[in-house]
Amino acid sequence: AVNIERVLEEISAEDDGMSHSRLMQTATSVREISKQLQRRPIKRAVRTIMIITKARDNKLVYLTRELTEFLLKTPRYNSDLGVTVYVDAKLRTSTRFDAAGLLASNPRYSDMLRYWTPDVCWDFPEKFDLVLTLGGDGTVLFTSRLFQRIVPPILSFALGSLGFLTNFPFDTYRSTLDRIMEGSGMRVNMRMRFTCTVYRAANNKRRPSTSSLPKMATPELIEDSQSEVLNELVIDRGPSPYVSNLELYGDTHLLTIIQADGCIISTPTGSTAYSLSAGGPLTHPSIPGILLTPICPHTLSFRPMVLSDTLCLRICVPKGSRSTAYASFDGKGRVELRRGDEVRVEAGRYPFPTVVGEGGTGGEWFESVRRALRWNTRGAVQRSF
Amino acid sequence: AVNIERVLEEISAEDDGMSHSRLMQTATSVREISKQLQRRPIKRAVRTIMIITKARDNKLVYLTRELTEFLLKTPRYNSDLGVTVYVDAKLRTSTRFDAAGLLASNPRYSDMLRYWTPDVCWDFPEKFDLVLTLGGDGTVLFTSRLFQRIVPPILSFALGSLGFLTNFPFDTYRSTLDRIMEGSGMRVNMRMRFTCTVYRAANNKRRPSTSSLPKMATPELIEDSQSEVLNELVIDRGPSPYVSNLELYGDTHLLTIIQADGCIISTPTGSTAYSLSAGGPLTHPSIPGILLTPICPHTLSFRPMVLSDTLCLRICVPKGSRSTAYASFDGKGRVELRRGDEVRVEAGRYPFPTVVGEGGTGGEWFESVRRALRWNTRGAVQRSF
Amino acid sequence: AVNIERVLEEISAEDDGMSHSRLMQTATSVREISKQLQRRPIKRAVRTIMIITKARDNKLVYLTRELTEFLLKTPRYNSDLGVTVYVDAKLRTSTRFDAAGLLASNPRYSDMLRYWTPDVCWDFPEKFDLVLTLGGDGTVLFTSRLFQRIVPPILSFALGSLGFLTNFPFDTYRSTLDRIMEGSGMRVNMRMRFTCTVYRAANNKRRPSTSSLPKMATPELIEDSQSEVLNELVIDRGPSPYVSNLELYGDTHLLTIIQADGCIISTPTGSTAYSLSAGGPLTHPSIPGILLTPICPHTLSFRPMVLSDTLCLRICVPKGSRSTAYASFDGKGRVELRRGDEVRVEAGRYPFPTVVGEGGTGGEWFESVRRALRWNTRGAVQRSF
Amino acid sequence: AVNIERVLEEISAEDDGMSHSRLMQTATSVREISKQLQRRPIKRAVRTIMIITKARDNKLVYLTRELTEFLLKTPRYNSDLGVTVYVDAKLRTSTRFDAAGLLASNPRYSDMLRYWTPDVCWDFPEKFDLVLTLGGDGTVLFTSRLFQRIVPPILSFALGSLGFLTNFPFDTYRSTLDRIMEGSGMRVNMRMRFTCTVYRAANNKRRPSTSSLPKMATPELIEDSQSEVLNELVIDRGPSPYVSNLELYGDTHLLTIIQADGCIISTPTGSTAYSLSAGGPLTHPSIPGILLTPICPHTLSFRPMVLSDTLCLRICVPKGSRSTAYASFDGKGRVELRRGDEVRVEAGRYPFPTVVGEGGTGGEWFESVRRALRWNTRGAVQRSF
Repeated sequence: AVNIERVLEEISAEDDGMSHSRLMQTATSVREISKQLQRRPIKRAVRTIMIITKARDNKLVYLTRELTEFLLKTPRYNSDLGVTVYVDAKLRTSTRFDAAGLLASNPRYSDMLRYWTPDVCWDFPEKFDLVLTLGGDGTVLFTSRLFQRIVPPILSFALGSLGFLTNFPFDTYRSTLDRIMEGSGMRVNMRMRFTCTVYRAANNKRRPSTSSLPKMATPELIEDSQSEVLNELVIDRGPSPYVSNLELYGDTHLLTIIQADGCIISTPTGSTAYSLSAGGPLTHPSIPGILLTPICPHTLSFRPMVLSDTLCLRICVPKGSRSTAYASFDGKGRVELRRGDEVRVEAGRYPFPTVVGEGGTGGEWFESVRRALRWNTRGAVQRSF
Repeated sequence: AVNIERVLEEISAEDDGMSHSRLMQTATSVREISKQLQRRPIKRAVRTIMIITKARDNKLVYLTRELTEFLLKTPRYNSDLGVTVYVDAKLRTSTRFDAAGLLASNPRYSDMLRYWTPDVCWDFPEKFDLVLTLGGDGTVLFTSRLFQRIVPPILSFALGSLGFLTNFPFDTYRSTLDRIMEGSGMRVNMRMRFTCTVYRAANNKRRPSTSSLPKMATPELIEDSQSEVLNELVIDRGPSPYVSNLELYGDTHLLTIIQADGCIISTPTGSTAYSLSAGGPLTHPSIPGILLTPICPHTLSFRPMVLSDTLCLRICVPKGSRSTAYASFDGKGRVELRRGDEVRVEAGRYPFPTVVGEGGTGGEWFESVRRALRWNTRGAVQRSF
Repeated sequence: AVNIERVLEEISAEDDGMSHSRLMQTATSVREISKQLQRRPIKRAVRTIMIITKARDNKLVYLTRELTEFLLKTPRYNSDLGVTVYVDAKLRTSTRFDAAGLLASNPRYSDMLRYWTPDVCWDFPEKFDLVLTLGGDGTVLFTSRLFQRIVPPILSFALGSLGFLTNFPFDTYRSTLDRIMEGSGMRVNMRMRFTCTVYRAANNKRRPSTSSLPKMATPELIEDSQSEVLNELVIDRGPSPYVSNLELYGDTHLLTIIQADGCIISTPTGSTAYSLSAGGPLTHPSIPGILLTPICPHTLSFRPMVLSDTLCLRICVPKGSRSTAYASFDGKGRVELRRGDEVRVEAGRYPFPTVVGEGGTGGEWFESVRRALRWNTRGAVQRSF
Repeated sequence: AVNIERVLEEISAEDDGMSHSRLMQTATSVREISKQLQRRPIKRAVRTIMIITKARDNKLVYLTRELTEFLLKTPRYNSDLGVTVYVDAKLRTSTRFDAAGLLASNPRYSDMLRYWTPDVCWDFPEKFDLVLTLGGDGTVLFTSRLFQRIVPPILSFALGSLGFLTNFPFDTYRSTLDRIMEGSGMRVNMRMRFTCTVYRAANNKRRPSTSSLPKMATPELIEDSQSEVLNELVIDRGPSPYVSNLELYGDTHLLTIIQADGCIISTPTGSTAYSLSAGGPLTHPSIPGILLTPICPHTLSFRPMVLSDTLCLRICVPKGSRSTAYASFDGKGRVELRRGDEVRVEAGRYPFPTVVGEGGTGGEWFESVRRALRWNTRGAVQRSF
């Protein structure tokens, strides 16, 4: 349907006289390519699977054991055995997981059962063809923290009711995995993450930067730490009784002064989380936007906003601010921002691919919004005669 | 920066085994192309200009006269004369516009001064290299109605304070036009419009369809009329005292039942208009999303939503509905929807290119939001000791 | 607990030197009296009962028949017969109600079974010791329209699920009525109503005022019509595409200009109805306040407001308004307001006494808010790890 | 206008057969008395005045000096001297206040210039006929904290722009005080305060209760501390990353479970403060209501609520709660609430009388809402053609 040749020609053409109608056709073509990419299923062998769960939850450990055994023993890809499985290194000695018993049942498993640590995820994310999570949405957020660079496709099983990010019921794991590994393959949503970078005013820097050659943003700012967030960055006033007074810049323009308890910079994925509590709009995860949602703003007119994901947002604590502020990343890693410090937020280079169900992306999200939030469910106002 | 060759290869590659990391690179590249397209200025000769204004407003007619004369006489493109100007055919006999006087001042103008009618806009939109509007945002909406298919670039002058769509002050028209025609060229925002199509239940059809071969949507539905909207489609209960009971479908899925005074399906451009009044989020015009904003919903949980612009939305009046509903398109063309009728809304194939100021798109929109809406301006709640 | 003597003394004391501490004690005492009045049950003979229902709903007519027979035949107050029952005059000839059959069963009923018309309600409201309604909240609103002056206590039976105003399940009518007529008596909520008066600009008056000596509000305004509303007065733009531009006065001060689709002036009882849809706060029916809730306001800062019920509000269509407006009263009696016309709203002199259940007023309202609106029911946003 | 005799009769009448129409007349009369009390000016000699300001703000100390001298020397009440003035004991040795210089100017001042301490305010609030505050709304809140029992009338001067509670411009202090002391007297608003009492679960109690005989609320709860608040009680999750899970009781009924960042229990006076930031309705200070406003609630349907001030609200941290909570009182006195602890909130017995301007209460509040919050100020959404 899309004439790719023309897209290429148009874009590489260096004549400035390109007419507006040709420009429009190009824009349309690019959008079309983008849609097709979303719908294209990935069909390739899944030879190495990682399982993530709460190692401290006994029930989950038993289920992990069951899942591991299923993966190890179910014959795949013309072999008489299953695939390589990585489980949390904390389970190595778990009596509930009972690795010894597993290996005893088939000595060939000893090459196939392996253990992941956070370092492995950081250094060799390409190792994993698929990641399975067992638990709730929190476990998926934990997975996002583990993979701060490239992220393998994530398939999330829910134990109880399905969540926004856990869209496969655990009790159908066999048919789900059979379909993905040997059937129709998997389709993924590329969920945008944000790269959040904390910059310290030169005199606020406590510990030396991890990089040997500190990137100097401006003469006075030193890069400190960086996180990829899947849901949101929250900046709040912490225990200070005073309202935050934050400067918000888009690229180099001062967009507004935020006088509020704080503000939330949320991805569309995070639009069903904290941003929603603070009054932000429900936003489909495929939208390339940045949600700006104030927390208890001190003006009546501070309506939530959806910004273009081409912006680099900067949230700065002014040098003359009455108090400091606190930043947290997907609800974790809280750091204090002192006067002169800032956080920069940009659409990240490493999106978070989540496997979608058979029904496809659109309906699934709506379904979870209705189910988990009771969005627009009945219970209506008084009706007249 | 973007490796176009690779984009091409990836997309045309038909191997289903494309790895997720390659897929991700492709997605990123496509997004990058899209951004670059937005930033690319159009530099080509503007030889034919159309001027749109309220022909009934005397003051505007005088200014149109002034602008016309400036365009006709200012030498452009190595000629000793200006460019061709199309004005509203209603001005042909206007004493205030005084076409006769203009032609008397230079007989060569007689070839250059022409008159547009709605039919010309419909049949030959490519005639115009640029459209100038004089007036308020309403005049820009009127322009969108005139160009229901391909739309030339629109440059909008504001008479008084700048609006959301009128971002050039009239009193600087000379320098603005000089810059665009002979200086750095123009950059445009491709604003999404929606194609809204009314379908009638077979037995509700009053007049024969305009097309000789009626497109049958489903056996019972007959296409009736179609409009491109720049701001929004509104469906409301009209004079009925009963609340609307509308079914909302996304593609073929029933998304929700809307029990409300009505609902607004808004473009991001329209997010500063009626949708905002009804509680919708401010949304940057570059976001490829569809805003669903209920009007006085009858449930507490019907929060506004930003949907993907890849959806085809259908709003249906159920066969068993207590009352009918009314649709209007950018505030005009109100039609009654009877039981069984529906309206379909899709991202249109013909976006609306608006010329942006020197500052570029991001800052300009923010500036208009702050200026016109007093978004997050001071006037704060009580402060403590 | 309240020293009434002191209240009297304080208030009648004409010495201007009353100290602030005495004044405060007085204020407290008055509030205390008010609370005690609310809790005081009325225990007096209920000898005449009126039944209101939708005469066109067959099922309701059968139930009315059943209820009527129960009231006529169950011995009360040391008599061997029941009490006088007034039913809708429309049922006089209803075959479903079968008045003839009822009278045939006991000739003494012929004195006890009577028929009400709207005129009887208007002229002799004191006739009725108790009014029973069968139906939904709409039937209660209809009852409020019938009794525009003094209102007898209203006991409302719900057929299906309980509503905000229909707090007794029909299937327990026997025990409910036994308790009220011969047991612990009844406690009532005095629900505030608003007196809404339409005033016409002198030249807008179509029909002569009903009063022989027209009350002249100001030289140019003539009183036109008056309604008591239990829920709300709504003023909207009607079919006009232009936003309403209404002036809102509190007593004689201009409070604000309302630029919106309209506005709702709601009682606390109405806070669960249309006002809630438009974003107004849930407000306990005992609060002596007036809710001002804009419908789709054109400013971001037009937050809903709860005003003192001591104010006389006036909503005026300015003489220079672009369009007219429409007023409706509890969803009925829609009238056009032309330029110069106004509506005045005041806490009415005739509250609407609704019988409350055993549990008392506070819990009952909360229960209905939770049940009918699903207020703050679970279905929560995403939780973190 | 009000027949007080009848009120008395009705209320003291012990016959249970009081008809509903008589009951209604009584209710109306009580409301009428209440209104008249509000409008009644207090005209009595103001012989002792207290001045409250920030003792650390040099500019304010100079103005306090100026005001003190004016009050001491301006002849009042047939004397050749002014009235007794109490200033903050912290000013006793202030060189900027220069008490010595003041006394040197007239030795008779030595009896008239006195110093207040928090203890004096607690023990002998009746000493003061009038309290003047200099500063912002925060100074008025500080004054409320000083007077935890009976509160003298408070007249608040604003230095810069007027606030919600500071409604007299300082530069007119002479005419303002002349009018109040010798002219038309003063009218006061009786602003409701809340009595907030912290109860500790028996095993959570750290320090012994101040009362010798601890009031036992239930066997397990021990009264801990008590505060009168003028604006609001806030209960939040503090530094805990987990959402609060609070039980809200009205008298003995469980009204709802609050899953949110916290909740605000606000007076109508506080409706322009934190409650407004969190989405609560603007509520006129004369409304006898309790505002319940959630902070970032985790359900979509948790709309703010206005409750009757006859309720005793109890906010409890459940025994099994995941985390503790924090309470603060008018933004101060933050205390941790551990599992099993609760806070009770009731309309206080000691309202806070604020002197109102000449214009009277209604208009003044509206004016401050418009001025300080820019409520419904222009800056409107896009208008159509």
